[in-house]
Amino acid sequence: MFEKKDIKTGLEEIPGGITAPVGFLAAGIACGIKKSGKKDLALIYSETPAAGAAVFTTNKFKAAQVLLSMEKIKDHNIRAILINSGNANSCTGEKGMEDARELISFLAEKLSVDESEIHLSSTGIIGELLPVEKMKKGIEEITPLLSKGGSQDAAEAILTTDKRIKEIAFRFLLPSSRREVKIGAMAKGSGMIHPDLATMLAFITTDISIDKSLLQSALREAVNKSFNRISVDGDQSTNDTVFLLANGRAGNKKIKEKDEDYYAFLDALKETAVFLAKSIVLDGEGATRFITIRIIQARNEEEAVIAARQIANSNLVKTACFGGDPNWGRITMALGSSKIDFDENKVSVAINKVELFSNGKPSYHYKDSLSDLIKTGDILIEINLNQGESTAEFWTSDLSYDYIKINAEYHT
Amino acid sequence: MFEKKDIKTGLEEIPGGITAPVGFLAAGIACGIKKSGKKDLALIYSETPAAGAAVFTTNKFKAAQVLLSMEKIKDHNIRAILINSGNANSCTGEKGMEDARELISFLAEKLSVDESEIHLSSTGIIGELLPVEKMKKGIEEITPLLSKGGSQDAAEAILTTDKRIKEIAFRFLLPSSRREVKIGAMAKGSGMIHPDLATMLAFITTDISIDKSLLQSALREAVNKSFNRISVDGDQSTNDTVFLLANGRAGNKKIKEKDEDYYAFLDALKETAVFLAKSIVLDGEGATRFITIRIIQARNEEEAVIAARQIANSNLVKTACFGGDPNWGRITMALGSSKIDFDENKVSVAINKVELFSNGKPSYHYKDSLSDLIKTGDILIEINLNQGESTAEFWTSDLSYDYIKINAEYHT
Repeated sequence: MFEKKDIKTGLEEIPGGITAPVGFLAAGIACGIKKSGKKDLALIYSETPAAGAAVFTTNKFKAAQVLLSMEKIKDHNIRAILINSGNANSCTGEKGMEDARELISFLAEKLSVDESEIHLSSTGIIGELLPVEKMKKGIEEITPLLSKGGSQDAAEAILTTDKRIKEIAFRFLLPSSRREVKIGAMAKGSGMIHPDLATMLAFITTDISIDKSLLQSALREAVNKSFNRISVDGDQSTNDTVFLLANGRAGNKKIKEKDEDYYAFLDALKETAVFLAKSIVLDGEGATRFITIRIIQARNEEEAVIAARQIANSNLVKTACFGGDPNWGRITMALGSSKIDFDENKVSVAINKVELFSNGKPSYHYKDSLSDLIKTGDILIEINLNQGESTAEFWTSDLSYDYIKINAEYHT
Repeated sequence: MFEKKDIKTGLEEIPGGITAPVGFLAAGIACGIKKSGKKDLALIYSETPAAGAAVFTTNKFKAAQVLLSMEKIKDHNIRAILINSGNANSCTGEKGMEDARELISFLAEKLSVDESEIHLSSTGIIGELLPVEKMKKGIEEITPLLSKGGSQDAAEAILTTDKRIKEIAFRFLLPSSRREVKIGAMAKGSGMIHPDLATMLAFITTDISIDKSLLQSALREAVNKSFNRISVDGDQSTNDTVFLLANGRAGNKKIKEKDEDYYAFLDALKETAVFLAKSIVLDGEGATRFITIRIIQARNEEEAVIAARQIANSNLVKTACFGGDPNWGRITMALGSSKIDFDENKVSVAINKVELFSNGKPSYHYKDSLSDLIKTGDILIEINLNQGESTAEFWTSDLSYDYIKINAEYHT
C-alpha cells in the first residue's frame, strides 16, 4: 500500500520513531489512568529548545490542553510534550484548565524547563476530570526513563482503541549542503473519530534548523495532504492535534525561505504525514478494506478534495466496499450530491482500473466480470471529471458490522 | 409519535390517500419490472387539469424523467403521473430520455390528454434501461383500473425496499369561506437514501383552487420543514421528487395571495409532508429507533438546521442510539464540528428531557440514572444553544447491524 517515493533527496526509512532525530528522547509508562493497566502516559523531550508548530481541531468544543497549547505555541519554543491516553480532559470546564496547568507546572519543575515550553495532549473519555495525583506520580516515574530507546513505549502509551502502534522515521539529504536530516513521528487514532476513547493525535520531531513560520507553513501543507485526506465521518474530535518540533540539531544552515532545502524537507514531512494518515485508516474501527478515492482532471485541487470527501464519507459506498460490490451507482450518486459543478455527461468511473461508467453512461461490456473485481484487497476508486488538470487522493475504510459493534456496545 | 395539531381550521385525518381530494383517481399494478412479481406501476390521474408544483433532487446526476419534468412543469398543467418502481432510469444517457418520451407519448394517447400534461417518475436500480414494452402493456392494463379506490394499490406499487405503504389524507376548512378542502398524499423511501433500489418520492394531491406560483411556494416551504429535515446520510438520490397537484375542484375562491386561506392550506400541507417524512424515517433501512433532534435558542432557523443535521448524520450518535447509550459526548462533538458559531460555555444538552450537559459542563448529578434513559422507545435529543430564539427539529433513525446487512449484501 505504501508507495515508497525515490525522491532526489535519498529519502530512506530508518528505525527510532520520534527519537530518531538528534536530541530527542522519549518514554512511555502505565500510571493508572486506564483501568486495564495498559500504558497511558508518554513524554517527548527535546534536549535543546525546539521550534514548534501545530495544527489543532476546528471543533468548537476544544479540550483544555488544546486551548492552552494554542495560546503558548505562538511565542515559545517547545521542550517537552506530556501525552496521556484514557481521559480527554474535554468538556470539563474551568477545573479541567486548572488541572492541565497544575500538571504542566509540576513537569516543568521536574525537567527544569519553563512552563511555557511544555505542552499537554490528552485522548480518552470526554467529560471526566483528569486523575491529577496519579499523573503526578507518573511524571516522577517517567522523567528518569527518557531515552533514545523510548519511542515505542511512547507510541504505545498514546493508543486507545488502536490495535497497532503507528511510528515511522526517515532520513534525507538537504540538496544545498548534502547534510543529513532526520524526521520521526508517531500517531494514534482509529480511523473513524471516536470521541470517547479515541481522537487523532500525531507528534513529529525533526533535527532540521528552520525558521518557525516556515515550519508552521510546511506542517499546514503536509496536514492538508495527509490527515485532512482521511475520512472522519464528517465529525472531528475535540482533541485532534498534530505537533511538529524542530530542534536544529542537524546543524544545517537555517532554512529561511522556500528554497530547495525547504521543499526537500516538505517532501519528507508529507511522506511522514501520509504514512501516519494511511496507518490510521488501516487501523480504522471495524475496517476490513483500505479504500483510495482518486479524483482526476478536476478544475482545481479544492474541488477534487470536496468530491473525494463526499464519496469517502458515503455510508452507501463504504458498505458496498465491505460487501465487495463494485457499485458505481452509489459512487456517481455521492459525487452528484457533492456541491461541485461538473458536466455529468463527461464523468467516468473506474474501480480497480476497470472503467464501469464512461462519459455519463454505463460501460455494459465489463459487466460480466464485475463480481470478482473487489472481492478482496485494497480498493481504488478513480473518477475522471474531464474538466481540468487537478488531482486529489483521499483515503478511507469500509463500514462493517464491527464498526457498529465497537460504537454501539461501548457505554457511557 | 405523530403530534396531531388541533389547528383552527379543524384539520382532520380522513381515508383515501391521494384519491381523497375531489377529482383524483389512482391505480397500481404489477407489470413485470420487478422480478419478484410485486406491484411496480402506479398511475395518478386528475379528471380535470391540475396546477402542478414540484421539488426535484439537487444531485448533478438527474434521472431522465426528472429532466423532462423540470422542463415541462413550468408552463403546463398536470393530468397524470405514471410512476414505476424497480428501475430508476438514471445514468442511462440519451436512450433513457427517448424511452421516457415514448412512454409519455403512449400514455397521452391512452388517456387522450396532451403529452405536456403527463409526468413520469421512477425509482429502482441505476444504470439499467427501462423495459419499455412491458411498461406499455402495463399502461394498457392500468388505465381502465383508475378509480377512487386505487390509492392503496398505487401507494404499494411505488415501494422498493420499503416495508410499509405510506399514505395519508386530511380535510380542513378554509377560514374565509368555511369551504372544505382535501389533501392526500403517498410517498416511498426507506430513510437512508438507497440509490439502487430506493429514492425518496412523494405525491400530494389537493382539490384546492390556488394560484400556481403560490402552490410552488407552499410546496417549497413545506418540503423545507419536512423532507429536508430527515437524515439522508449526506447523500441524495438521482431521482428524489415531490409532486403537488391542485385541481381546484373544492370550488373555493381561488387563492391569489398569502392570505388566511393560504396559511390554512400551508398548515395542512406541512402536516401532510411531516407525516410522510417521519414515516420514511420510521421505515428507514435497519432502523430500530426514531430520533428527534431539537435545537433551541439558536440565532436563526438556518443555523439550527445546520447543527441538527450534523448531529443527525453522525454515525457515532446513531450507533450510540442503537446501543441505547445516552452518550452526550458524541452529541457535543458532532455539534462542535458543525460550522455554526456559538459559545461552547453556554450549551446545554438534554436526552429524553434529562439534562446531561449544562452550560458547557457535565451534569454529574444525573449520572446514576443514565443506563435506563434511552434503553427503549423514541429518543429526543435537545440542544440549547442559549444564543437566540430560533428552533428547528430534525428526524433520523439509528445505525444498526441491519443497515450494514441491507447495504453490504445487496449486489450490483
